[in-house]
Amino acid sequence: MIAFTSRWVEPPPHVTDLAEGGLAAGFRAAGVPAGIKPSGDPDLALLVSSEPDTVSAARFTRSGVLAAPVLLCQSRCRLDGLRAVVVNSGNANAATGNRGLEDAARMQGAGAMAAGVHEERVAVASTGVIGVPLPMDGVPRAILTARAELAPDGDAAFWRAIATTDAFEKRLALDVALPSGTVRVSAQAKGAGMIQPGFATMLCFVQTDAALEAETADLLLGVCVKRSFDRISVDGQLSTNDTALLMASGASGVIVAPESEDELRLGEALDYALRRLALQMVRDGEGAARTGRVHVHGGHPDTVERVARAVANSPLVKAALHGADPNWGRVAQAVGAAVPGAAPLPYDIWLDGVQVCAGGVALPHEPPRLGEEVDYVVGLPGEGAETEVFFSDLSHEYVRINAEYTT
Amino acid sequence: MIAFTSRWVEPPPHVTDLAEGGLAAGFRAAGVPAGIKPSGDPDLALLVSSEPDTVSAARFTRSGVLAAPVLLCQSRCRLDGLRAVVVNSGNANAATGNRGLEDAARMQGAGAMAAGVHEERVAVASTGVIGVPLPMDGVPRAILTARAELAPDGDAAFWRAIATTDAFEKRLALDVALPSGTVRVSAQAKGAGMIQPGFATMLCFVQTDAALEAETADLLLGVCVKRSFDRISVDGQLSTNDTALLMASGASGVIVAPESEDELRLGEALDYALRRLALQMVRDGEGAARTGRVHVHGGHPDTVERVARAVANSPLVKAALHGADPNWGRVAQAVGAAVPGAAPLPYDIWLDGVQVCAGGVALPHEPPRLGEEVDYVVGLPGEGAETEVFFSDLSHEYVRINAEYTT
Repeated sequence: MIAFTSRWVEPPPHVTDLAEGGLAAGFRAAGVPAGIKPSGDPDLALLVSSEPDTVSAARFTRSGVLAAPVLLCQSRCRLDGLRAVVVNSGNANAATGNRGLEDAARMQGAGAMAAGVHEERVAVASTGVIGVPLPMDGVPRAILTARAELAPDGDAAFWRAIATTDAFEKRLALDVALPSGTVRVSAQAKGAGMIQPGFATMLCFVQTDAALEAETADLLLGVCVKRSFDRISVDGQLSTNDTALLMASGASGVIVAPESEDELRLGEALDYALRRLALQMVRDGEGAARTGRVHVHGGHPDTVERVARAVANSPLVKAALHGADPNWGRVAQAVGAAVPGAAPLPYDIWLDGVQVCAGGVALPHEPPRLGEEVDYVVGLPGEGAETEVFFSDLSHEYVRINAEYTT
Repeated sequence: MIAFTSRWVEPPPHVTDLAEGGLAAGFRAAGVPAGIKPSGDPDLALLVSSEPDTVSAARFTRSGVLAAPVLLCQSRCRLDGLRAVVVNSGNANAATGNRGLEDAARMQGAGAMAAGVHEERVAVASTGVIGVPLPMDGVPRAILTARAELAPDGDAAFWRAIATTDAFEKRLALDVALPSGTVRVSAQAKGAGMIQPGFATMLCFVQTDAALEAETADLLLGVCVKRSFDRISVDGQLSTNDTALLMASGASGVIVAPESEDELRLGEALDYALRRLALQMVRDGEGAARTGRVHVHGGHPDTVERVARAVANSPLVKAALHGADPNWGRVAQAVGAAVPGAAPLPYDIWLDGVQVCAGGVALPHEPPRLGEEVDYVVGLPGEGAETEVFFSDLSHEYVRINAEYTT
């Protein structure tokens, strides 16, 4: 797996990165071709827990337009006790109506047979083009093939089969030293920030062999998603298919009790894992040169959030970031647009630690040389509220790829 | 001036386009270099009405970050009785603090001397880079030079001096046949949609020689701005400097009484003029190939507006428009993102008149061949609310220009 470093996301001391990968104990995975991608690349992924007491938690897109697999998971799964996951890439199974729901149910049924568990314990997920029926012909056979290939080190194959146009692998395996013993966290994610938002669905599957209560899994996943995938800018777009699942097999025998030091430390590890994967999504993509983080502080949580999103989603700011252009006027413009009627607004701006604007007035300064990670800080009046959003640049490749996607 | 045609904006029958231009009676204008643009191009524009009873109306940006000239106009002008306008391009005089306000006041004062009117009757406007003090050295002399060059056909020179990177002229002169007689409407605008939003300030100056009450001018400008400049997508960004002014000299002797047929017909002509200029802003820019219009109908005004903006501002939709890619899944995704939690949402989508999605489900269809103007229609549940937004595509040139703007 690729090495990961960032000024913004650093591993806690009790977390060890396992470069070779490998799933948390109790899990096996595989990825095979099912004939959905025209390229013939792997596009069907299966993950199974062998532990009957596996607990889970799930989060889905908030979009008002939901793909069939999301609707199916929400209506026909025991989301706190998932034992298996079936994923296809190459087709989102979205805007596909009743046929789409039937196809998702068939995937779920085949997954249940392959995993030897009840259907309601099998989640399904899809990513790819919207509005085209899922080519199901090869799917049942592919699920059987995947079953035969399930392996504890199948996370690499699993990842390849959930990826679409991701430019690099987003996968990790961590050993996490808890007071009660060492557990493993493994995770696989796909999604490519600004670059391929036609395929921008975010999928993330996290496994641990810690023994959790389902409520703990839900709490931890909820907090960590809020601090990771909810904090990245993908054009301000939500996908119809975004899915994040956490499964805990308990196979390590290490019990993580609610409100224990173990829970705190496991939470820190999951937080690191998801923020690392989220930042990799922002970084991903042909042509992407730089990554930005905007941190906004002030007195009103809503305003702080609105301003951070406005800066992170501004094509002007993104294009300037791409060219390493320290043109902070674009940040000022985005700030102003986010708070109509607030003038005169005494805002401050820092660019990579250099204050360029104080109380809404330009400060004389030496423009900083911008590297691969650029920090934007915006100060608004008041105190007590703060937030951050990670965002990618806007590159030539973004336009080329997205102008030529289906034609 | 360039010829104008659009499937969306057509002249009413009582309006005649004057290809040669020329200001409405009572107005003279000029544009000269003042040393603000490094290129030495004209960057100082002056417009004066010779009629003491001239009335006016104004609209400004809603940004929470206002440039000095906007603050000055709002605090120190009789906006219903403006006689003159001084505009500079090449510098926005924004985020410039007290010095910026003093510079704007000096421009206003020199304009008042040149026009021979009281300062409060002189509006000022600026467009260009943010956060750099306005180079004032050559401004007073340039205003005197412009005064000497004031001419009834000075609208072309005026336009050149307010433009920044506009790729083509946005200017018009119309003869408008009212029941009580023929009046002229002339207008000059700058602003280049998605392409140069670093310079994306929208400035628009409209003159008529009809005799209006100030309240009528305000009503007409308000309605027409709502249907034109408020209906275009410039990255979802507001500029710090946007300004629209309507001045009515009364020099034609044609009185337009409130709630008269004359007022209705003049309103139609102004509506045409401002929608034409707004659409030209959307079209403008190196690399821009296509223009889109999204029309959304449904039961809730707020939702309809939010969905229209989401589609128009989506970089995915814009990039697909650039490539003439009929990938309507991106429209569906933007719709869903705009109405979180609304699933299942029975939305319909038409692409250039071809229905591609009904009740949230893809329809078999022959993908339309997309031309220079592409129509997107989104149907949401319910009736009674509708809106439209015009938007530009996202081109390679957009990225190139905005990545290289100040560096």
